[in-house]
Amino acid sequence: MPDTATPDSTGLPEAASYEPTERTVPTRAKERASYDEATVHSILDAAYLCHLGFVRDGAPVVLPTLFGRIGRRLYVHGSTGSRPLRTTRASDPGLAVCLTVTHVDGLVLARSAFHHSMNYRSVVVHGIATTVTDPEERRLALDAIVDQVVPGRSKDSRPADAKELAATAVIRLDLDEVSAKIRTGGPNDDPADLSLPYWAGVVPVARGYAAPVPSDDLDPSVQVPDYLDAL
Amino acid sequence: MPDTATPDSTGLPEAASYEPTERTVPTRAKERASYDEATVHSILDAAYLCHLGFVRDGAPVVLPTLFGRIGRRLYVHGSTGSRPLRTTRASDPGLAVCLTVTHVDGLVLARSAFHHSMNYRSVVVHGIATTVTDPEERRLALDAIVDQVVPGRSKDSRPADAKELAATAVIRLDLDEVSAKIRTGGPNDDPADLSLPYWAGVVPVARGYAAPVPSDDLDPSVQVPDYLDAL
Repeated sequence: MPDTATPDSTGLPEAASYEPTERTVPTRAKERASYDEATVHSILDAAYLCHLGFVRDGAPVVLPTLFGRIGRRLYVHGSTGSRPLRTTRASDPGLAVCLTVTHVDGLVLARSAFHHSMNYRSVVVHGIATTVTDPEERRLALDAIVDQVVPGRSKDSRPADAKELAATAVIRLDLDEVSAKIRTGGPNDDPADLSLPYWAGVVPVARGYAAPVPSDDLDPSVQVPDYLDAL
Repeated sequence: MPDTATPDSTGLPEAASYEPTERTVPTRAKERASYDEATVHSILDAAYLCHLGFVRDGAPVVLPTLFGRIGRRLYVHGSTGSRPLRTTRASDPGLAVCLTVTHVDGLVLARSAFHHSMNYRSVVVHGIATTVTDPEERRLALDAIVDQVVPGRSKDSRPADAKELAATAVIRLDLDEVSAKIRTGGPNDDPADLSLPYWAGVVPVARGYAAPVPSDDLDPSVQVPDYLDAL
């Protein structure tokens, strides 16, 4: 999805790059790190699932969850009864989180076991997650989470009613301390290993969608929408 | 991969189920949780990427990394110079981690925005990660990590030499406090929404591999190995 189509909800012009911080500069493979905003946003926008980490009772917890992006803000949602969202709400002024998105693009097979690797694109966001209370921002966030999975879907479904909204917690994480990491290319075998009799190269990996399966109870007159063909 | 083929490295007979704990029993959708060992292992074995969470300076960190399973033990590896592994090594008796594996199997589109969901299989492991120092266990763990990505590959590559082994940290996380979570099936729309004019159903999602791409410098006499066809 082209990033230029997404207005920055803060109203400020988007800068070209995020500011590196101590914890977003890797100790190794620094050449794989990027703070370029368009790069970060495109990796996020190619995903809908993230892994959200937070600390509970001193121990880390990592849960898979959906997210949506609006400009320099990420949103996740959940039941008001769920443990992570209760934890967020109970925290004042917010909950320290780490939100990570990863795409695997290829298996990198080297002659040496040591140089086996993956081609991937990942984004790691550090920050303080806060509960969103503004009704309009909550509504936009929930639409963004649905549209992150299937662009265009939020306008083609029944919006949440008052009872559903009351049962849904929305939390926001500003994109501020964020970095991308990308590996591409083939294996980096040692020169002495190049003549070994082992296959070396890359097995490309990609996400695939199969044909949509309608619900058993779907009115047969409802056609598969165009936006599903675009996935 | 059938789990029965994997011997339990502890030498004990494998029990049928993991013991639920306070933090592995979800507060919601309890019917999606499973502690069945075969279920947990099959979800892990269908993956090679995990998201590893730990706490650094009081804040959560979530990083994507490869893992391998041997019986009731998981292993991850990394450079001895990398920050997470330095953190593990510096911790005595170990580092509290949460290791999460997630497969997305389908996008679940309901008539209502509220009932949109995902079909997925996930495993969450809580525990204390410890550095592996035993040379034989380190070797088996490194093979397991390679074979988790491409079964059979470790025997068809050059094993790590002394210098490479010295540069590689291996950490272990015992499968003890672990649960699986699975959602399958179609959308759960409210009865009143069934006649709304919105498409409802599931878009199946699967990981796909493209044809292996050999390295430019690969000796043309080296054929694509059979184990890549089996992916």
